[in-house]
Amino acid sequence: MPALTNEPHRVDDSFLPTSKTMKALVFAKPGVVELREKPIPAVGPNDALMRVTVTTICGTDVHILKGEYPVAAGLTVGHEPVGVIAALGSAVSGFKLGQRVIAGAITPCGQCHSCLDGTMSQCGGKAMGGWRLGNTIDGCQAEYVLVPNAAANLATIPDDLTDEQVLMCPDIMSTGFGGAESGRIRIGDIVAVFAQGPIGLCATAGARLSGASTIIAVDMLDRRLAVSQSLGADLVVNASDGDPVARIMELTNGRGVDVAIEALGTPWTFESALRVLRPGGTLSSLGVYSGKLTLPLDAFAAGLGDHHIVTSLCPGGKERMRRLMNTIQGGRVDLRPLVTHSFPLDQIVEAYELFANQRDGVLKVAIRP
Amino acid sequence: MPALTNEPHRVDDSFLPTSKTMKALVFAKPGVVELREKPIPAVGPNDALMRVTVTTICGTDVHILKGEYPVAAGLTVGHEPVGVIAALGSAVSGFKLGQRVIAGAITPCGQCHSCLDGTMSQCGGKAMGGWRLGNTIDGCQAEYVLVPNAAANLATIPDDLTDEQVLMCPDIMSTGFGGAESGRIRIGDIVAVFAQGPIGLCATAGARLSGASTIIAVDMLDRRLAVSQSLGADLVVNASDGDPVARIMELTNGRGVDVAIEALGTPWTFESALRVLRPGGTLSSLGVYSGKLTLPLDAFAAGLGDHHIVTSLCPGGKERMRRLMNTIQGGRVDLRPLVTHSFPLDQIVEAYELFANQRDGVLKVAIRP
Amino acid sequence: MPALTNEPHRVDDSFLPTSKTMKALVFAKPGVVELREKPIPAVGPNDALMRVTVTTICGTDVHILKGEYPVAAGLTVGHEPVGVIAALGSAVSGFKLGQRVIAGAITPCGQCHSCLDGTMSQCGGKAMGGWRLGNTIDGCQAEYVLVPNAAANLATIPDDLTDEQVLMCPDIMSTGFGGAESGRIRIGDIVAVFAQGPIGLCATAGARLSGASTIIAVDMLDRRLAVSQSLGADLVVNASDGDPVARIMELTNGRGVDVAIEALGTPWTFESALRVLRPGGTLSSLGVYSGKLTLPLDAFAAGLGDHHIVTSLCPGGKERMRRLMNTIQGGRVDLRPLVTHSFPLDQIVEAYELFANQRDGVLKVAIRP
Amino acid sequence: MPALTNEPHRVDDSFLPTSKTMKALVFAKPGVVELREKPIPAVGPNDALMRVTVTTICGTDVHILKGEYPVAAGLTVGHEPVGVIAALGSAVSGFKLGQRVIAGAITPCGQCHSCLDGTMSQCGGKAMGGWRLGNTIDGCQAEYVLVPNAAANLATIPDDLTDEQVLMCPDIMSTGFGGAESGRIRIGDIVAVFAQGPIGLCATAGARLSGASTIIAVDMLDRRLAVSQSLGADLVVNASDGDPVARIMELTNGRGVDVAIEALGTPWTFESALRVLRPGGTLSSLGVYSGKLTLPLDAFAAGLGDHHIVTSLCPGGKERMRRLMNTIQGGRVDLRPLVTHSFPLDQIVEAYELFANQRDGVLKVAIRP
Repeated sequence: MPALTNEPHRVDDSFLPTSKTMKALVFAKPGVVELREKPIPAVGPNDALMRVTVTTICGTDVHILKGEYPVAAGLTVGHEPVGVIAALGSAVSGFKLGQRVIAGAITPCGQCHSCLDGTMSQCGGKAMGGWRLGNTIDGCQAEYVLVPNAAANLATIPDDLTDEQVLMCPDIMSTGFGGAESGRIRIGDIVAVFAQGPIGLCATAGARLSGASTIIAVDMLDRRLAVSQSLGADLVVNASDGDPVARIMELTNGRGVDVAIEALGTPWTFESALRVLRPGGTLSSLGVYSGKLTLPLDAFAAGLGDHHIVTSLCPGGKERMRRLMNTIQGGRVDLRPLVTHSFPLDQIVEAYELFANQRDGVLKVAIRP
Repeated sequence: MPALTNEPHRVDDSFLPTSKTMKALVFAKPGVVELREKPIPAVGPNDALMRVTVTTICGTDVHILKGEYPVAAGLTVGHEPVGVIAALGSAVSGFKLGQRVIAGAITPCGQCHSCLDGTMSQCGGKAMGGWRLGNTIDGCQAEYVLVPNAAANLATIPDDLTDEQVLMCPDIMSTGFGGAESGRIRIGDIVAVFAQGPIGLCATAGARLSGASTIIAVDMLDRRLAVSQSLGADLVVNASDGDPVARIMELTNGRGVDVAIEALGTPWTFESALRVLRPGGTLSSLGVYSGKLTLPLDAFAAGLGDHHIVTSLCPGGKERMRRLMNTIQGGRVDLRPLVTHSFPLDQIVEAYELFANQRDGVLKVAIRP
Repeated sequence: MPALTNEPHRVDDSFLPTSKTMKALVFAKPGVVELREKPIPAVGPNDALMRVTVTTICGTDVHILKGEYPVAAGLTVGHEPVGVIAALGSAVSGFKLGQRVIAGAITPCGQCHSCLDGTMSQCGGKAMGGWRLGNTIDGCQAEYVLVPNAAANLATIPDDLTDEQVLMCPDIMSTGFGGAESGRIRIGDIVAVFAQGPIGLCATAGARLSGASTIIAVDMLDRRLAVSQSLGADLVVNASDGDPVARIMELTNGRGVDVAIEALGTPWTFESALRVLRPGGTLSSLGVYSGKLTLPLDAFAAGLGDHHIVTSLCPGGKERMRRLMNTIQGGRVDLRPLVTHSFPLDQIVEAYELFANQRDGVLKVAIRP
Repeated sequence: MPALTNEPHRVDDSFLPTSKTMKALVFAKPGVVELREKPIPAVGPNDALMRVTVTTICGTDVHILKGEYPVAAGLTVGHEPVGVIAALGSAVSGFKLGQRVIAGAITPCGQCHSCLDGTMSQCGGKAMGGWRLGNTIDGCQAEYVLVPNAAANLATIPDDLTDEQVLMCPDIMSTGFGGAESGRIRIGDIVAVFAQGPIGLCATAGARLSGASTIIAVDMLDRRLAVSQSLGADLVVNASDGDPVARIMELTNGRGVDVAIEALGTPWTFESALRVLRPGGTLSSLGVYSGKLTLPLDAFAAGLGDHHIVTSLCPGGKERMRRLMNTIQGGRVDLRPLVTHSFPLDQIVEAYELFANQRDGVLKVAIRP
């Protein structure tokens, strides 16, 4: 029976800090991340300190490692924390030490003009302003992480879910599902999802949960396409076998799809997603682009096709996390198969090496401090 | 592999009319429906004549039988046609004789102010204006039925679906799914569905397809609750066992549900649906009410609870039918278990007797001319 | 030229408290409100203390006075504060002492599940949970008021607007405009607004700003109907002259209106609003109801008319206040004519007497501590 | 008093055709349009023949003239008809000969899958499929024009509006207002409109009617900016005076706008519109683009800014036309100042010459057959 509440929660004191320092993976310089001993952070009035039990590495972290996305030298990396509350700020109420919690990769304040206007990922009115962990403040590839605006961001884990079951909630699941939601998929829609990495796979699962009657998954790796089928794809297109645009138009008898989700971040997949849209369709874009992004005017009907293009940054906040965890709890999706490897925090540099090079069929790695 | 198109279709000439008359079930007077021989209707320029292969009886038809919903004496009853095209009006293009088709219970014109404004079920700006078949014009419990505004309303059946598989599309599935859609269910919502007759069961299935993470089905019959579980309900509440409102508030730890769907049409289920809503929630109403319908001010927060109440008449038109059939084709739902009994057209009066009295565990009956 | 920003703001130290007590109007017992000397409240970490420069009396306050809406004896009444910041909690940043500010009648926290889900007026998941001032905590008919969740609720007043110009923002304007917004008025809609008290007048102004092409205002007082015309009504219907439903159906040639806004809170206006709706139309309800609220089944098409009924509690939060103030700043609406009388705080009991009895053509009164 | 209905209408027989041929402006070859004598078209069952009383030239027609937008040689150009009904097809009911009517530039059928799905401008599932007049069938720069799907497309003109008052409805007003509507402008939004040609001016007026509290109009011609102010712009930016992006960011204190409307069709205005958007904002695009359209990744936040980009083709159909005409009738906007010149049909080639070269401060020209 699915739990309908997150109460009561196990409380376990064993995770309170016993030292003043902790291990943390920091960005040293382009190409180098390294484990360092850092002070356990001091807890401000609106913060919470979380003891990390499991976290993971994101594609964005690899961009940080390579210096492609700039962060301050010495910053602790990581934005997908699962753990327990180790300390609470003086102004934070409604939580208990020892509660099992997650926080989203995006930690909105809930109180600025953007948040109050419903644009929480762009907190503070700055592009990507809600992305703080492992970006503008220390992240969670560490023994402890400070969660800002804790009242808005600590989400208690239902007792019947393990830490592993909710590991994808903070970022991958929230982002991928967000792609389906932003696409406003309706019952009976035909949907194409370009790229079946972790986010694309979650977009596929999200499209399934949103009522799409036909889901076409595109990737270049058969093993990812096989996973996509287990998560809801009806048809798979291996882009190595030829132009996926032509194949999708053939599969839809020239009609095109109602919604195309881009989950890679290349100009080619973006343009392809636009090319398979029916007039009036929606391109829901999740990728982080580099290079030159062009709108091909033929596919774009010179601007007269009633097209929608929507981009989404991972939705955060504790209500979002609650909804995602309840979706797992209700048996609607099981994302554990995405975690293909596991490493202790001590070996996180090796984990990066594996993940950055996409070796051994890796999808996501669990990191355990 | 799910078909992504409805083309090509089997064409079979054997259903062209060979006589000038047909059998049809007509409303004679309150309490009496009877099979009569009537002329096969003449086809106007925008009409199509459909040879009915299978149809069904709706709860509304029972209201007509009892004289509770008034129709003209002599009108042919029925609004859920599955069949083949037997004749096409001179101004109707894009179809072929012999194609297997359905038409929705609601047959919008697509060209009046209401239809062009997106309110197609209220075609012509009249309440329920889109409901013509078996209401304001002859219906389909007959060997042949005239489909008005054929260009907008004939929906071709995919080759890989049987007539039985699509029998619920014209009304029950469209209405029930409409209840989920009008409720604007989001991923992670908790949803309650009051009553698990055919429409409530389809609402349950529709809620599942819309991303609800927890679905609570309410009914007074265990066998209907069992069917609801097979269609997506997570939790069932037998209202014979005590107040379902209290039970649902208990199941949700006092939070209430995000969306409550009413699928019976009694003041009690309507009020109960309102009572289990969280502040800001949506009551999606499908029932046809009689008696006195009241908004209890405590549950309604005296009008300050940011509640939404939405009513829906069955959406029709060929695009709606296409989406519903593709949903079945994609394996998202199988509604054949709802058809518990089958009768030839000659025995339709007996079928009414069974259905009107809800004997033998009947859910829906198939009628085969 | 309309200001596009709220920066910089005048800072004026003269309003810092010089005493430890203040005058405040408290609810004593049903039928009695009285001015008392109370301690100036202590400021918690997330609070702000506001020196009130001008406030007003709401119809809801009259219900409190009469004991029809229960509050704790001794509570300070009032929820429409305009003033300056006199003190800031230790965890509140981004504001300066002396800044001119308003706070909404509804003060959402921005950080609970409801707020993060976009249902901010129902903060905490409780019906009307966001309404704190003058309801569950001391209000603003006083020299000072404590604003909870100050980060989310202090809205700075643009320099070129006077206190009087923004006095309607905290409640009346936000509520009335909310009625138009919840009705999802589109360009070209015909809208009826039932009752032209302060909220109904703001709903009329909001409908005008939302693109309605024809606005029909209903009231029983010609002087209110005259004000409604100055705020955007095209046609007025004095309900004293006969059934306003019949009149509106006549004015619309039997079509009915797209959106009907109820702004009084009586079963009669609610039912009338439903009766003038076209099929598929929206009833946007703002009233606080007492008595027995019924949905007349003929007007409700027995539940099959694709009707929407939406209720709204006043939207709050600083972003809402910013938008409303900018609307005034841009010259889109001027609500000063609604303030017909002015009293010093010392005479607030007399102001209640005038307002509660609707004497002297009163619409709203300004109260100046 | 604004009329709330379009009934009754003047009927005048004097416009019935008395000849078998008519004058029509046809596209001869790139660079050449010429007046020819053509047969008055035969009326099919779902058509109506309209005697054109006034029409106009669109920027798109100039693209046709130049051969930049290909149409068949011999096609009659023009898609903005105002006139009277001269003949009705046998299957068209609800209209009378001699009624004053307009038809939209886009003439959806209302009955195909796209139309029934709410994507009427893309009728038939083809990009721009709803644009038939002067594109795929003969247009209205002629004495007579055949209106296809007449039931869905003939919109009767209210008696108290002149032909001149509704001349902008078929295209310019519908398109410009559509830009504001697609941008989902809310009360309190800051909106920028790039280019103040006829469509941009209507977008400005539409933004005003949608509740924008600050509208910033951009153009390079002061006289167009002056017109924009009369239609609702609060601030004007002459792009000849320097980078409009920098100026708009300065005007908004670095915040950016909520909605930017592009109404020219150049990569530069498109990119500029994106650059002035706040994170989470919407770019509503109306232009017809040529050249290379790029999404600048800095302004696009590399795909992570929660941006929306929406394109709109002119909405058509008689309900749309009714709403626009009622908006004029209600005094919400007066677009007659846009018609700066008038020519008889005989001089239409000269009118093209003037309009194509933007001489004499031309905005729109009236053409009178």
